[in-house]
Amino acid sequence: MQRNEISLAKFHRLFYPQVPVVITAEFQATVGAMPAIWCIPLSFKPPLVGVAVAPDHETSRLIKGARSFCVNWLDFSHANQIGVLGDISGKGHANKLSIVGLTATKSPEGSCTVVQEASAVLECRLRESHRTGSHDFMVGEVERASAGESFTDYWDFTKYDPILYAGTADGERKTWVFMSTHGDTRRVALKRQK
Amino acid sequence: MQRNEISLAKFHRLFYPQVPVVITAEFQATVGAMPAIWCIPLSFKPPLVGVAVAPDHETSRLIKGARSFCVNWLDFSHANQIGVLGDISGKGHANKLSIVGLTATKSPEGSCTVVQEASAVLECRLRESHRTGSHDFMVGEVERASAGESFTDYWDFTKYDPILYAGTADGERKTWVFMSTHGDTRRVALKRQK
Repeated sequence: MQRNEISLAKFHRLFYPQVPVVITAEFQATVGAMPAIWCIPLSFKPPLVGVAVAPDHETSRLIKGARSFCVNWLDFSHANQIGVLGDISGKGHANKLSIVGLTATKSPEGSCTVVQEASAVLECRLRESHRTGSHDFMVGEVERASAGESFTDYWDFTKYDPILYAGTADGERKTWVFMSTHGDTRRVALKRQK
Repeated sequence: MQRNEISLAKFHRLFYPQVPVVITAEFQATVGAMPAIWCIPLSFKPPLVGVAVAPDHETSRLIKGARSFCVNWLDFSHANQIGVLGDISGKGHANKLSIVGLTATKSPEGSCTVVQEASAVLECRLRESHRTGSHDFMVGEVERASAGESFTDYWDFTKYDPILYAGTADGERKTWVFMSTHGDTRRVALKRQK
């Protein structure tokens, strides 16, 4: 195939579509939440997750303070909320989730704040964080995983409808584009110009 | 939502669906290639990519020897080849890509071996590799990115049809399931029982 060189400023978009997760953390009575697509498993034993977070992000501060974070999966019915969550800052808010109509709740063991509406959640203890270029790469050990009835050994994609982040429209990050796995597209207009 | 605790042995499957990339590396006249889903951007400046690779994997040895690797995206028409590529070992083969009918070619600057049929490629210099639990986490600096005409500022998903890895059927890893973004599903039967 004929390929042309593209700007390195766009290399990360080649990874699209990606399922956005919501990273939550609570520290000193403040609940932070941010959508993330730079998040993967790193190890089976011990079960480790890595997530790259911009250092100036409020959620980054909360994760480092709490030494824990949770990874939350929301289904396609929540695409608009995920879009807005990524568009606003949590600074100055005691509970960023409530701004977009999502519910912060304690995990069963009370160690972490999770999204009540999530289809699945990982509760992670922060093991290490290192600056890797522009971002902090945070490694969490999964202490507990839970999922709704649409996951048994694997996701049942006839029941669980994941969100796929596809990029932005208009080329100026004015509108986030989310796809489903069966041809649906949803556009979420951003208020904040990034 | 009601969630139940799930085994930590399955936590990584919550990340599905994920777009598999093919990691290629050439060292001492041996071309290695492996599908990977544990691969994300880590940083904008410098442009960094992280990939978690099982240490006993032949491609891991080749990456460490060459101190470089490439990330290749193939479209849905290559789902079967990606499945088979993940099912076979490259040990004892001079060119694993050719076994599945893919073409190894040198990147324009000749620094890396890439998949000729790829819709997009990142050429990366290995910056560091550390053991993180069960896997080696390898960090590469992107030195060149290229893509076909279906990518300009973003992927045009009316032209580029990505592969989404959805897990395995039968619960025993006998069949890999790939989805498209418009409702198609492809099952690739594995010969090797893992």
